[in-house]
Amino acid sequence: MTPTLSTVFVSEVVGTAMLLLLGGGVVANNILPKNKGNGTGFLMVNFGWGLAVFAGAIVSARSGAHMNPAVTLGIAASDLVAGKSIDGTRILVYICAQMIGAFIGAVLCWLAYRKQFDLAEDPALKLGVFSTGPEDRDYFWNTVTEVIGTFVLVFVVLGAGLLGTAENPAVNLGWLNYLGVALLIVGIGASLGGPTGYAINPARDLGPRIAHAILPIKGKGSSDWAYSWVPVVGPIIGGVLAGLTASALLS
Amino acid sequence: MTPTLSTVFVSEVVGTAMLLLLGGGVVANNILPKNKGNGTGFLMVNFGWGLAVFAGAIVSARSGAHMNPAVTLGIAASDLVAGKSIDGTRILVYICAQMIGAFIGAVLCWLAYRKQFDLAEDPALKLGVFSTGPEDRDYFWNTVTEVIGTFVLVFVVLGAGLLGTAENPAVNLGWLNYLGVALLIVGIGASLGGPTGYAINPARDLGPRIAHAILPIKGKGSSDWAYSWVPVVGPIIGGVLAGLTASALLS
Amino acid sequence: MTPTLSTVFVSEVVGTAMLLLLGGGVVANNILPKNKGNGTGFLMVNFGWGLAVFAGAIVSARSGAHMNPAVTLGIAASDLVAGKSIDGTRILVYICAQMIGAFIGAVLCWLAYRKQFDLAEDPALKLGVFSTGPEDRDYFWNTVTEVIGTFVLVFVVLGAGLLGTAENPAVNLGWLNYLGVALLIVGIGASLGGPTGYAINPARDLGPRIAHAILPIKGKGSSDWAYSWVPVVGPIIGGVLAGLTASALLS
Amino acid sequence: MTPTLSTVFVSEVVGTAMLLLLGGGVVANNILPKNKGNGTGFLMVNFGWGLAVFAGAIVSARSGAHMNPAVTLGIAASDLVAGKSIDGTRILVYICAQMIGAFIGAVLCWLAYRKQFDLAEDPALKLGVFSTGPEDRDYFWNTVTEVIGTFVLVFVVLGAGLLGTAENPAVNLGWLNYLGVALLIVGIGASLGGPTGYAINPARDLGPRIAHAILPIKGKGSSDWAYSWVPVVGPIIGGVLAGLTASALLS
Repeated sequence: MTPTLSTVFVSEVVGTAMLLLLGGGVVANNILPKNKGNGTGFLMVNFGWGLAVFAGAIVSARSGAHMNPAVTLGIAASDLVAGKSIDGTRILVYICAQMIGAFIGAVLCWLAYRKQFDLAEDPALKLGVFSTGPEDRDYFWNTVTEVIGTFVLVFVVLGAGLLGTAENPAVNLGWLNYLGVALLIVGIGASLGGPTGYAINPARDLGPRIAHAILPIKGKGSSDWAYSWVPVVGPIIGGVLAGLTASALLS
Repeated sequence: MTPTLSTVFVSEVVGTAMLLLLGGGVVANNILPKNKGNGTGFLMVNFGWGLAVFAGAIVSARSGAHMNPAVTLGIAASDLVAGKSIDGTRILVYICAQMIGAFIGAVLCWLAYRKQFDLAEDPALKLGVFSTGPEDRDYFWNTVTEVIGTFVLVFVVLGAGLLGTAENPAVNLGWLNYLGVALLIVGIGASLGGPTGYAINPARDLGPRIAHAILPIKGKGSSDWAYSWVPVVGPIIGGVLAGLTASALLS
Repeated sequence: MTPTLSTVFVSEVVGTAMLLLLGGGVVANNILPKNKGNGTGFLMVNFGWGLAVFAGAIVSARSGAHMNPAVTLGIAASDLVAGKSIDGTRILVYICAQMIGAFIGAVLCWLAYRKQFDLAEDPALKLGVFSTGPEDRDYFWNTVTEVIGTFVLVFVVLGAGLLGTAENPAVNLGWLNYLGVALLIVGIGASLGGPTGYAINPARDLGPRIAHAILPIKGKGSSDWAYSWVPVVGPIIGGVLAGLTASALLS
Repeated sequence: MTPTLSTVFVSEVVGTAMLLLLGGGVVANNILPKNKGNGTGFLMVNFGWGLAVFAGAIVSARSGAHMNPAVTLGIAASDLVAGKSIDGTRILVYICAQMIGAFIGAVLCWLAYRKQFDLAEDPALKLGVFSTGPEDRDYFWNTVTEVIGTFVLVFVVLGAGLLGTAENPAVNLGWLNYLGVALLIVGIGASLGGPTGYAINPARDLGPRIAHAILPIKGKGSSDWAYSWVPVVGPIIGGVLAGLTASALLS
């Protein structure tokens, strides 16, 4: 049964807010001062983001737990290839809800780490809790990295779904399916997150960047709008490419 | 079938004792001297607490594996919203058993690390094995952080339960459901544990604090009663808020 | 269907050999020189031992994947409490096979890390790959730590089994049940492994210690027989205690 | 239903390409400069390779997710022992596809980390992203280590399959079975990856080595062909040994 548009909206707002609260939180814990986890490192950040997806997916299960415009558009591209009709309004509701949810999650994360934000001195660290940035800035190759990372995400998610079509019928594993997605995020982060910090999700990056620009964060610096299009354009290309090629390569 | 009050009592005592034995243990291993795991860091503590919940939940399955007054009260709030009747005696049995179990677990942890406690010099480390404390003390913002962390815990736990209500029927995954809770704890710790050490459970913090005050621990210092209300009040607010909002936002 | 004694023997030898090959291996990787994982730390050792149990359990599934005399004796104690008859010969076959398997696994581990053993200079590190030793030597408290750790192992394993008896029927999760045990080992290691290195298994410690004494390891030192009884006696007490109390506390 | 040869080909190319993209990627993230994960360490590499297998297996499920000539040959050896006929053409298709996929994955990995490759100065690090090399070069003992590691992989994979034959019928766990394989890879890496970096897969090592030799990588050094036979011969011996002994030792 297809969920109503209002269910989709609430569900994606809630899920993406959870995603950004926990995802931003693990970065804050790692890089802001006066935190128990300060300096723990990239592996904790990997697990933190994976489990942020896990928690977010559980609370947005009713809408299919997209939480990511690249996933929504990738599935649409895959439907297009399969000859199914696409509902533009529905896609728009998904993406708007994801943007709003990401914004809300970033605000909640700032509240949870309010004192740590106040105590931090480096403005770059403050932005780093909200949005991604490259280690070596090169717009072309940074975009390539984001395209590849998002392709992997959407391609494998679609592939895991296809497991249940043929002689090997789909297994109803409940929340466990979200563990599979969470582990995939951990893997993409560890394997492809080095150069750009694996946004692989336009809402995850742009929503919090807008929050960073608006919120009265003590001692904040630039929101780095010059880079902001990379984690939007790269993931959209990667997700759509995965949607277009998945059925040819996986079935 | 609803478990009897005596089953609830035994089950919650056993589960919460297991939770605190293993949860206190991983902190002891990390911060007390003369330990193989000394200095391993926050990620080990995250996994340790997650797996402490895993083990505790398995042995308190008969009572629903609450082990946490914030969970008990959150479920009660959720029942209230759903128009179900609430049994005050039952809630009291849950919470008393959780407090007693947490106390017992803290004592067992002290016994397992008896020599390490004797060898440690810093009284703050000794208290740190028993109870949480903030990195930057600010009662208001510390409480906010605990409210948000506990909200996430109870909200997602209730959300995962709701997965089994509609067209996607609940899957009987046995002990695996406790893995889901364990992973959630790992995620909350990594993402929201920085400022206050994620008590997110009044019994987890207050029971061991009482044990710390009573036990003849060599060279112990203050039990920091000034902070003790934060990890009680914050989690209760967060859990009840989650219970009140879960059905509106998740179904 | 009860497996035959010869099946039990082969199965426990194979499983315990796998356990010690991988369990000894992760310690070797961590502490011996000229290894990619040298100095990675205690968390890798925790995961390594957990996954050693995982692999060992899969290949000894036919005999119930004990791989540990404390588990075998704990189940026997639990059967005794339940009024079931106990087969002494069968228990002896289990324990002999576990000892032999542990010895074989230690030999295989030495072969896999032959060059690293030759290059290492500190004899204590070489013994550390085979058997456990305390950080702070105190026979009484070291034994207490081993008792508590093994109690947790056997108690939770029995508890997980009990999940499938009442209104919540047992789920056939195949190899996944061994993931549960593996995670429990990771948790016990992180939480209770600090003082003594969590032998929690007489065969795991004594079998490799005998191998250490016999094998022509270049530059080896003492096999530390003075300590050798602690990781035998402690785990047996803990396992039997868990078997005796499990049904009273868990059902 | 046996998949057609063309399905096998596409599926193994896709899966092995995914394996090497993510597997090479986690090494690149860890050892190349200007990466968020630079210096995170061996445990991240372990998890990264495990999750690379996880993602690769999901997208090559139609062909049984071998992605490894040692697995293909081990299964063939096991079939031989069981008296089944062996199809040489099919085996050849598997292995060719695995080699081609590994080559493609290595190229994609280079593209994702293009800037980092350009910025790195040490040619040995660049080769390390593509292929394995020993910490202490000794062709005989390096081969022994690879034999043992691959034996464990194929033996346990075959053992897990056997779980579903007798009174304990196979459980259809969908993608979760690939989680089991992924965890096994994490464990083998942690436990047996120290001396040689656990190729345990001829295609994983040789395909990328050819890519390293061909690609116009800035400032690259030798492709170390002198060592290249070790991670081919060792894994083949280990895999076939496991296939020959599995049914005798596991059923």
